[in-house]
Amino acid sequence: MTPVIDQLGWILALTGPGGRPTLGPALSSPRVGAMSGQASYTEPPTPAFLFDLDGTLIDSVYQHVIAWREALTQAGIDLSVWRIHRRIGMSGGLFVSALMRETGVRLSEQDIDSLQQAHAREYLKLADSVLPLPGAPELLADLTASNVRWAIATSSRQVTAERALPMLGLPADTPMVTRDMVGHAKPDPDLFLAAAAMLGVEPEHAYVVGDSVWDLLAARRAQSIGIGLMSGGYGREELERAGAYRVYSDPADLLSRADELGIRGLPIRNISDPHAASPS
Amino acid sequence: MTPVIDQLGWILALTGPGGRPTLGPALSSPRVGAMSGQASYTEPPTPAFLFDLDGTLIDSVYQHVIAWREALTQAGIDLSVWRIHRRIGMSGGLFVSALMRETGVRLSEQDIDSLQQAHAREYLKLADSVLPLPGAPELLADLTASNVRWAIATSSRQVTAERALPMLGLPADTPMVTRDMVGHAKPDPDLFLAAAAMLGVEPEHAYVVGDSVWDLLAARRAQSIGIGLMSGGYGREELERAGAYRVYSDPADLLSRADELGIRGLPIRNISDPHAASPS
Repeated sequence: MTPVIDQLGWILALTGPGGRPTLGPALSSPRVGAMSGQASYTEPPTPAFLFDLDGTLIDSVYQHVIAWREALTQAGIDLSVWRIHRRIGMSGGLFVSALMRETGVRLSEQDIDSLQQAHAREYLKLADSVLPLPGAPELLADLTASNVRWAIATSSRQVTAERALPMLGLPADTPMVTRDMVGHAKPDPDLFLAAAAMLGVEPEHAYVVGDSVWDLLAARRAQSIGIGLMSGGYGREELERAGAYRVYSDPADLLSRADELGIRGLPIRNISDPHAASPS
Repeated sequence: MTPVIDQLGWILALTGPGGRPTLGPALSSPRVGAMSGQASYTEPPTPAFLFDLDGTLIDSVYQHVIAWREALTQAGIDLSVWRIHRRIGMSGGLFVSALMRETGVRLSEQDIDSLQQAHAREYLKLADSVLPLPGAPELLADLTASNVRWAIATSSRQVTAERALPMLGLPADTPMVTRDMVGHAKPDPDLFLAAAAMLGVEPEHAYVVGDSVWDLLAARRAQSIGIGLMSGGYGREELERAGAYRVYSDPADLLSRADELGIRGLPIRNISDPHAASPS
C-alpha cells in the first residue's frame, strides 16, 4: 500500500457524503497499528481468467445461430431463431435434447449426427465473416504482458475453435480446452475446471468470462467468479440474474475497467472509444 | 358478474393465507348493496391490440441483423453484431445517428441513403427464409373472430412490410401503419398513435405488443400498456425493465394466456405445445 493511497483512505474514511464524518472501521479501531507492520496471513494468488470463446472473444454467435437454423431447416425442423440463439454455447447434446423436448421431434443417433455435421458445414460457410470482438486481442496481450494467467474454455470442437487463434493474434500452443477434451460441455463445469487445471490454479481463484447464462452456471458450479459480456446478445439483466458479478459490453469495455476486478499493472492504453478498437 | 364469481369472491375475501379472515373491502362495506343492482359508471371499451411486426408476428429479426451487418461491411464499417441486434426495430434515422456517434464514422446523406438501400437489398435476399412466429396467424384470427380490434404498426417501409401479410393469412387491406405514413418511427409514439386512430380507439385503451425496448418506450409515450414478446431475442428482464406489463415467449404463448389480459370469448384451441404451433 503506497502512502498516496493511505492518504486517500484517510480522507474517504473521515468524510462521507456531504462531508460528514463517517464511522467506518478506520475510525473505530486504531489505524496506526495497521500501518506500523504487515498483518500475518496467506496472500491470495493473483486471479486467473478463463475465457469463453464464441461471443466473448470472437463475434461468431450470430453465424452459429444462422448455421443451426439452416441445419434444422434442412432436417425439416422449424424452430424460432431466438430459441436457437438462447442455446448457443451450451453442449450440443443438451441442445438436441432440449430441441426434441420442445418440438416433440424424435431424432435417432444418426439424425443427431447428421444435424451436427450440417451445422458444422453451414458454420464453415460463414466462418470467413467472423471477426475478433473489439478489444479481445488487446485484452489477452495485456494480461500476458502483466503475468496474469488466462486460458480459453469453449464448448466448440478443436477443429472449429482453433480457427480463432490466428485472428486473435495467438500462437497454436495457447492454453485452450475444447469439447473434445472433457466429459461434458457447459453448463457443466468441466471445461472451466480443466482450464484452471491446465493453468495450475484453483478454480475459486479464477474469473470466468462469458457471454451466456451457460457460462455463468458453469462458473458457479466451478466455484469461480462469473463475469458477463453483452457481446453475445444477452442483456445485462439476464447475465446479472444468472450470477455475473460484473457485466461489460465487450472485451474492450472489460479492459478499460479491469481495475474493478483488482487487476494491477496493466499497460495504459487509449481505449476511450472501445467501439473503434480494432484487432492488432 | 355471475353468481359463481361472486361466490368465489366471498370465499377469497373471507379467508386469507392460512385460512385467517381478511379485512378486504368486501368485508368492510356491505356486499349486499353491490349485489342488488348495477353500479353507475362508464364501461371501458374492450382493449384493442397494436402489434409490432418484425420479431413480434414474423421471425425476421435475425435476417434484418444479418442484412445490416452485410450493408455495413460493404460500407467499410465494422460494428459488432449484437450492437446491430439491439437497434432492430428503431427508426433507421436514429440507427444511423447512433452508428455514427458510436463508431466515429461520418456519413453523408448519400452514404446513409446507400446504406439503407444496401440493407433493403440484402434483406430481400434473405426474405424467403422468413416465417410467421408460432401462433401469430392463430392469434390474429382469434382476435378477429372475437371482435377484438387490432392493427399492425411497424418501423419498416410499406414495400417490405406488406410481404408479411400473405404469410400471416391476412388480406391486403389489413389495418397496418408503416414508416412511410408517419413523421417518426419508434421509439417515438407516432406509429402506435396512428394505428390507434386507424382503429378509432384511444391509445390508452390499447395494448402495444412488441419484442423490443423501442416498442415499449413508444408504448409508454402513447399511454398504451406495453406487452413484451421474447421472440425477437430480448430477455424477459430487459423487457420488464422497459415497462412491459407482461412478457410472453411468442404469439402462441400470449394466445394461450390471453385471459391474463382480460380478453374474453376467445375460441378454445389446443395450443398446449406452442412450439409445435404452425401457421395455418
